[in-house]
Amino acid sequence: MTVRALDDLVQRLARLPGLGPRSARRATLHLMKHRATALVDLVRALERASDQVRPCSRCNNLDDEDPCWVCRAPERDPSQILVVENVDDLWAMERAGLFRGRYHVLGGTLSALDGIGPEELGIDRLLERVREETIGEVILATSATVSGQLTAHYIAERLAGLPARVTRLGRGVPVGGELNYLDEGTLEAALRARQPVE
Amino acid sequence: MTVRALDDLVQRLARLPGLGPRSARRATLHLMKHRATALVDLVRALERASDQVRPCSRCNNLDDEDPCWVCRAPERDPSQILVVENVDDLWAMERAGLFRGRYHVLGGTLSALDGIGPEELGIDRLLERVREETIGEVILATSATVSGQLTAHYIAERLAGLPARVTRLGRGVPVGGELNYLDEGTLEAALRARQPVE
Repeated sequence: MTVRALDDLVQRLARLPGLGPRSARRATLHLMKHRATALVDLVRALERASDQVRPCSRCNNLDDEDPCWVCRAPERDPSQILVVENVDDLWAMERAGLFRGRYHVLGGTLSALDGIGPEELGIDRLLERVREETIGEVILATSATVSGQLTAHYIAERLAGLPARVTRLGRGVPVGGELNYLDEGTLEAALRARQPVE
Repeated sequence: MTVRALDDLVQRLARLPGLGPRSARRATLHLMKHRATALVDLVRALERASDQVRPCSRCNNLDDEDPCWVCRAPERDPSQILVVENVDDLWAMERAGLFRGRYHVLGGTLSALDGIGPEELGIDRLLERVREETIGEVILATSATVSGQLTAHYIAERLAGLPARVTRLGRGVPVGGELNYLDEGTLEAALRARQPVE
């Protein structure tokens, strides 16, 4: 292909997570075919999100108001903070509809390689919140990956000495999981976390 | 999630072919995180493609000039037309770098259900080209699907009586294909198209 404007659009789309070159090409042609509707609407949605959406100054969640819709909600328990890596983890938790406290969104995990330290993750801000907001429990819900767990460990150490209880999500066999498809680490965690049958 | 500007962007992205709700959410957060770069560049690329790219008045390929880069290329054989359903089929053919003639992009297949008739596919324009451009061969390269083949059949009938030779792509075992993974239709076609071993 030698059409620069199309090549460029395909490349921009292909850089989005979850899109490869093939789906970027299909999406580009779809947008070209539905220029007056899909393309115009997408540009408008991008500009609106860019103009209106900001991170919450308290918890780093994204919203068009500050504090965000979670921090503003009067019915939520202000004494619990669930710490997640990214906004999509918060969204996943909200879709489940189980947690009624507040969040702290790190925006990633500690990574010396990528120059992401405690400052970039706003960990001091989390500590301030725990001190000032009379927090009873901090639930560390970073990913069960090496970097997620290192980050959780670091935060737990920094929280030591503060009055809040520090917990992490349970480990084990995911619901619907078949044993023969699980990795050894999960099996080990599940065995350790075994429960008496009631 | 209750942030309208974000919800809206997720939904617009999820409507693109090749993107589901999950990748649309990931893409949205990526764009929010890299607002000054990824988001701005994407908006610019969309606007540029929208402003500059048009279908070729001769073959319906997309380009920022008319006639398109294929129709303009002096080294290409003007006596061969390869008929494809969509621009991405043309791109796939060009990536293979095997065909040195010109194209005719239908923009879809005949579909009574979707109200797509010969007019929508520019089949009269194809016939005009065959009459006026002294075309020696029309290669029907629509998909090997029911609607693709019905469309090819219809075009072949319309071309009957004109001096151009009408051909279609060969059928058989795809390169790298294992017999036990192929459907019966492909096996039947491959058997019918069997060749003497040299």
